[in-house]
Amino acid sequence: MNHFKTLLISSALLVGLPGATLAGDSASTAKILIEKAQESTLGWDIVESLTTEVGPRLAGSDAEARARDWAVKKLNALGFANVHVEPFEMEGWQRGSISVMVGDPYPQRLVATALGRSIGTPVGGITAPVVRFETLQDLRDAKIGSLKGKIAFVDSKMTRTQRGSGYGQAVQKRSAGASIAAERGALALLIRSAGTDYQRNGHTGGLRYDDEQPRIPAAALSNNDADQLGRLLVLKADVPLSFSMSSKRIGTVTSGNVIADIVGSEYPDEIVLLGAHLDSWDEGTGAIDDGTGVAIVTAAATLVARHAKPKRTIRVVLFGAEEPGLIGAKAYVAKHKDDLDKIIMVSESDFGSGRIWRMDTGIAKEDEAKADDIQRVLAPLGVLPGARTASGGSDVSALSAAGTPAITMGQNGWKYFDLHHTPNDTLDKVDPDDLAQNIAVYAAFALMVANTEGGFHPPAEPASEE
Amino acid sequence: MNHFKTLLISSALLVGLPGATLAGDSASTAKILIEKAQESTLGWDIVESLTTEVGPRLAGSDAEARARDWAVKKLNALGFANVHVEPFEMEGWQRGSISVMVGDPYPQRLVATALGRSIGTPVGGITAPVVRFETLQDLRDAKIGSLKGKIAFVDSKMTRTQRGSGYGQAVQKRSAGASIAAERGALALLIRSAGTDYQRNGHTGGLRYDDEQPRIPAAALSNNDADQLGRLLVLKADVPLSFSMSSKRIGTVTSGNVIADIVGSEYPDEIVLLGAHLDSWDEGTGAIDDGTGVAIVTAAATLVARHAKPKRTIRVVLFGAEEPGLIGAKAYVAKHKDDLDKIIMVSESDFGSGRIWRMDTGIAKEDEAKADDIQRVLAPLGVLPGARTASGGSDVSALSAAGTPAITMGQNGWKYFDLHHTPNDTLDKVDPDDLAQNIAVYAAFALMVANTEGGFHPPAEPASEE
Repeated sequence: MNHFKTLLISSALLVGLPGATLAGDSASTAKILIEKAQESTLGWDIVESLTTEVGPRLAGSDAEARARDWAVKKLNALGFANVHVEPFEMEGWQRGSISVMVGDPYPQRLVATALGRSIGTPVGGITAPVVRFETLQDLRDAKIGSLKGKIAFVDSKMTRTQRGSGYGQAVQKRSAGASIAAERGALALLIRSAGTDYQRNGHTGGLRYDDEQPRIPAAALSNNDADQLGRLLVLKADVPLSFSMSSKRIGTVTSGNVIADIVGSEYPDEIVLLGAHLDSWDEGTGAIDDGTGVAIVTAAATLVARHAKPKRTIRVVLFGAEEPGLIGAKAYVAKHKDDLDKIIMVSESDFGSGRIWRMDTGIAKEDEAKADDIQRVLAPLGVLPGARTASGGSDVSALSAAGTPAITMGQNGWKYFDLHHTPNDTLDKVDPDDLAQNIAVYAAFALMVANTEGGFHPPAEPASEE
Repeated sequence: MNHFKTLLISSALLVGLPGATLAGDSASTAKILIEKAQESTLGWDIVESLTTEVGPRLAGSDAEARARDWAVKKLNALGFANVHVEPFEMEGWQRGSISVMVGDPYPQRLVATALGRSIGTPVGGITAPVVRFETLQDLRDAKIGSLKGKIAFVDSKMTRTQRGSGYGQAVQKRSAGASIAAERGALALLIRSAGTDYQRNGHTGGLRYDDEQPRIPAAALSNNDADQLGRLLVLKADVPLSFSMSSKRIGTVTSGNVIADIVGSEYPDEIVLLGAHLDSWDEGTGAIDDGTGVAIVTAAATLVARHAKPKRTIRVVLFGAEEPGLIGAKAYVAKHKDDLDKIIMVSESDFGSGRIWRMDTGIAKEDEAKADDIQRVLAPLGVLPGARTASGGSDVSALSAAGTPAITMGQNGWKYFDLHHTPNDTLDKVDPDDLAQNIAVYAAFALMVANTEGGFHPPAEPASEE
C-alpha cells in the first residue's frame, strides 16, 4: 500500500465535505482491510489457541501467567514490536469447593458457584433458614439486625437485552449484596445468578466487601436452582439450607498487562489503544470473556500491519486481572499517567463476539464529524451511529475516565449473559463469521483512527457510559 | 357421562366401517377428554410437585423412596384405587466425586460425570496418557493388551434426530465401552457424552460390565470437553490425564414400583397399562426423564376417571429403577407373570414432553384396524400413523417382550438428548402446552383402548423396536 502518502495529500483538501476528514486512501485501505479480515481465520486461530492451550486463566493464578507467556510468544510471532509484560500485584483468590443442600423435608442439592473474592464458610458450613428478597432494594429495606442467624437470598431476575443493559441492574446484588446482607446480620448471601440462561450453571463474578461490615460468604445459584429454591420456600417458609464453601483469599500474587505495538510510520508516539483482557474466570475457558476480545484486537492490529501503514502507533493491551475489578487497567493508568495525553483513542473488545451493530463515541465535539466518517465506512458491516457517551469498554474506561478519547464498538449481546462467567463459556460458542466481522470493524477502525488528520481529543467531560 | 352404555349398543352395529371398531360414544368421549386435558394444569402440577418436593431420585436411594411415598400420596389423593408399592431389591450405587485434569503443558480441568454403576478409581486417581478412538468399533479393533497403562477415550458424536434414533448408536460406547477397553488393557474409559448439547454438562447413564473382564472406572466428558481433549491430543499426542473418581457400588438396596388403578366398569380384570418411571439420575431433578412421563400417565388416567367410565381397568405403573437397566420392569414381569395375559395394552411415556406426532403399534394384525381408528381420533392433535413394530416404551418393553400388546406414542425428541441424564434436566425445560398435548393423547387413547370391543391381542412375534 505504497501509494498511501500521495493520495493523502489530495484528500486532505476535502476537509469539510462529508467524509472529508478521512484521508481518501485511508478509507479505501480500510475497505480492503474489511475484505481481508473477513477472509482471514487469524482471529479464530488466536481464540482457539488461547482457550485450548491455556484454558481457564484466573487473575493472579499460574494459568494467567501462562496466558501472558502465550501472549508474548503469539504477539512476537505475529510481528508486533515492543512486546512486553508490565507486572503488578494483587490479592489472590481461590474458588475451592461448594455445596448447597436443602434440608428436610425436601433434601436435595442446589447448583451454585462462589462469587469471586468471597470468603468461605466456616469449616462444617452454615445451616440456617433462608430469607428471600425479591430485589436488592428489598434487602436494603430490611431492618439492621433482622437477618441474624439467617441466609439472605436475593432472587431478582436479569433482563435479556441486545446491548446487555440488563447487567448493570443485575450485577449490583452480586457486587454489593454481601455487605448489605451482613449489615442486617445475615450469615451468608445467596443470589440468583446475574445471567439469562437456564443451563444449570451458576454465574460467578466479583463481589466487593464494604470495609465497615463483617465479611460473609456469598454464592450464586443457577437460574434453575433459584426457581427451585423459590418454590421450596413457598412450600415451607423456613426450610433450612446447608451452605459450605472453601473459597479463600490467598494474599499477594502477581498479575500483569501484556503490551505490544504496531509502530506508527509518522507519529509513533501517538497511540490508538485497543484493549481486551487476558484473564478469565476459572470455570469456563474464557472464550467469549474475553478470548474473543483478545483475538479481535490482536488479529485486527496484525491485519493493519500486514495490509496498511498506520501513521500512528496501534497498541494492543491485553490487560490482566480485569475480572476482580479492572486491576490491570488501574495499574496501566498509574504506570502511564504522564503519557496519557499521547493516547488519541481507546477502545476495548470485551463483550463476546456478537456482531458489532453500533459505534458510540466519547470524544471532543469538534472531532465528532471525523468519527462519523469512520462510522460511514463501517456501515456496510451493519454498524449504526450510536451515542456520544462512550467509555471505550471495560478496562479502557479507566483510561477514558482519566481523559482519553474513546469509542465503543457495540456488539450484539443478546446471548452473552447466557454464558458470561459460567463453565459454559467455551470455544464452541464462538461463531467464526461474527468473529471475523468484529475483526473487520476493528481493523478498519484502527487504521482510520491512526491516520485521521489531527487525531482525536477527549470530550469536555469524561463519559459515563450507561 | 351416563349416556355411555346406551350409545355403545347402537355404535357397536357399525363394526366393519371405518372407525367402526370404536364405540361411537367412546370416540366422542375421547374428544371431550382431549379438550379437558388441554385446559387442565393437572399434569404440570404433578411434574412440578415431584421435581420440587423430591427432586433428584436415584434408583435405590432414600430419595427414590421419598418419591414412592410422594406417588402413593398423590395417587390416593387423585382417587386411584389399589394404590400400593411392590418393592424389589437391587444393587445400589453412589456417584461420589470426580476430577479429570489435563497434565502439563496444558494443565486444566475437564468437565465429566461418572457413568452410572461405574466403580471408582483407586484413591489418588489414575494418571496416564490418553488414546483416542473415533468410534467404538475403532476401540474394538484395537489389539488385546494394546491399551495397557492407558486411558481409552471414545469420541464418537451423537446425531440429533426427531425420534431420538441417534441414541441407539451413541449409547453403545456408554453401555459396553468399559469392558471392551478393559479387555484391551485400559486403566479407565472416558467417552464423549451420549448427548447433543454444548452446555458443559456430562451425560451420565448406566454401563454394564462384562463379567469376563476386569472392571475399570468410566466417565463421560461433556461435548465441549471432548472437543477440548481432542484439540489437546492434536497438540500433544501423549498428553497425560489425571482421573480421580469415588463412585462405588454399595450392595443391596430397596427400590419399588408404585401401582394404581382406575378400575374398569365392565372388565375390571382386563388391564390397559400406562407406564412411566419414578427414578431419575441424580444430577438433574428428572423433569423430562421421567417426571413428565409420571405426570402424563397419571394426569391422563385421572382425567379419564373424572370425565368417562372406562370398561377395562386403566393401570398406572410408576416403575422404580428404570435407569440402571429396567430393574423395576423386570420385577413387575416376574411378579405378575401369571397374569400378563390380562394386559390388553401397554404404553409408556419416557421421552420427555415433546409433542406426540406418531403412533406405533405392536399388536395382532387383526387388531390393527382398531388401532387405526384410535389414531384417527388423535389425528387432530398431530398424531400420524406409525410403524407396526412398537415395544410400548422403555420399562413396558419388558412386558411386550413377554407377550403383551403395545402401542408407542412417539414424541418429538429433537431437544431431548440436550438434557437427558444431565444436571440440566429441570422443570424449566417443560413446555406446559406440549405436556397438555401429551396428556390429551394418552387420556383419549387409554379410554378408547379400555372400551374397544374385543380388546387387543399381541402380535405373532414380540416387536423389536428400532
